[in-house]
Amino acid sequence: MFIIKIGGGKEINIKGVISDLATLNEKIIIVHGANALRDELAQKLNYEKKIITSLSGYDSVFSDEKMIDLAMMAYAGLKNKRIVELCQQKGINAVGLSGLDGKLIQGKRNSGIKVREGGKTLLLRDFSGKPKAINKQLLNLLLVNGYTPVLSIPLIDENNFAINSENDDIVAHLQMEMKAEKIISLIEAPRFLLDKNDPSSLVLKISKTELETMEQKVEGRMKRKILAIRKLFDGGNTTVIISDGRTESPILDALNGKGTTIT
Amino acid sequence: MFIIKIGGGKEINIKGVISDLATLNEKIIIVHGANALRDELAQKLNYEKKIITSLSGYDSVFSDEKMIDLAMMAYAGLKNKRIVELCQQKGINAVGLSGLDGKLIQGKRNSGIKVREGGKTLLLRDFSGKPKAINKQLLNLLLVNGYTPVLSIPLIDENNFAINSENDDIVAHLQMEMKAEKIISLIEAPRFLLDKNDPSSLVLKISKTELETMEQKVEGRMKRKILAIRKLFDGGNTTVIISDGRTESPILDALNGKGTTIT
Repeated sequence: MFIIKIGGGKEINIKGVISDLATLNEKIIIVHGANALRDELAQKLNYEKKIITSLSGYDSVFSDEKMIDLAMMAYAGLKNKRIVELCQQKGINAVGLSGLDGKLIQGKRNSGIKVREGGKTLLLRDFSGKPKAINKQLLNLLLVNGYTPVLSIPLIDENNFAINSENDDIVAHLQMEMKAEKIISLIEAPRFLLDKNDPSSLVLKISKTELETMEQKVEGRMKRKILAIRKLFDGGNTTVIISDGRTESPILDALNGKGTTIT
Repeated sequence: MFIIKIGGGKEINIKGVISDLATLNEKIIIVHGANALRDELAQKLNYEKKIITSLSGYDSVFSDEKMIDLAMMAYAGLKNKRIVELCQQKGINAVGLSGLDGKLIQGKRNSGIKVREGGKTLLLRDFSGKPKAINKQLLNLLLVNGYTPVLSIPLIDENNFAINSENDDIVAHLQMEMKAEKIISLIEAPRFLLDKNDPSSLVLKISKTELETMEQKVEGRMKRKILAIRKLFDGGNTTVIISDGRTESPILDALNGKGTTIT
């Protein structure tokens, strides 16, 4: 089994990805983003994304009800169904699902973020959280019957509300349960880049141990990124490939060693 | 088994519908519309719905690629996932699917509509069609495992493209395969109205035979509506209830004889 994570950028060659997947003889689970599409839609609908800054100085998107509406339209709606359509055209019998469907991806809602507003400290709580469990029975039901799950946010929280979550965390949880042989993460860069301003920092091969050493040395976003990759190994041995989603054959390129391979 | 058709108007009390369904001990399939939401979204996105008039004088919405995008966002995205979320909150383990997912609802694309434009006769072909088959295996897989399917357009056509279709036709096809004991159709009117300008034309009970006689006497939209109801009996005996979706308890009202019952 392969888990394929498709980044939500505009430049990922999804047609190429699906064509490649159709040539493999593997069970596949696809997890996709749609942030470029969501942002475009938000702009067209004159909806301004709210960024809040926590007391500890950490910026995040505030997922209010409207942002969840947008996620349902962009992720679970347009992007998901166009990917399913492409799969069907290539002979992959895809079934597109959000975390709400059959409680497929269950999460815990974040308790809130402390912010300073007008001299006061407020606790702002949005519809976001972390994945905590997978409905493995439903996933296996689909897989053993020849269907390819195509998954997206929103997740379902402990009170059955739709919540936003990070795809990195979703993939890590899926991997804990499903133990895929390979995880291919398609991004809009040639390979995993240690320093996004330095093209010479592209990494071709790296071990999990080296990754841990690396994590200590970096800060902020990159630290979180490396942590997310490390988590993929929590469920046991696997191969993680971070590769360019913009090429003609993104999956075949990834499998042929053109991305960053982590073992 | 009950099939519940939820109209796509703004005034349907979906919370009430789901609360009612949660009290029943029945297998359920939900088919929902979202035309009000889609039209609202189209307007906000400055997308003008194209209405074309055929040579025979019949008006229809032209489903171009953009209209399918809108259907994916409004029907399969926002409306579907909010209904699934409500179901989960009431303890119904819903799974929202479009006709594309697992080729659940397969259709045949319309061959095109002849129109007059600039003195010429043109054949305009859009992404619309009629349902022809259901993936009964997938529906049963979900139903026997305790999941409640929540279905919407788009359908998948013979070349694996997403197409628009009428919910009346989808429900008729579902019924042919699934043979539900009751079909409840929730509308934004007190009951089935023979003449929409005459409140006294509300029908409480009617037989399939009476419906056929009635069909001969009426024209246009009403003729098509009656034909759609008649088709629901093609798969064998059932009870069709057309009832007000705007009340506090739309499903219980329907079951308690407040709608139009057709046997």
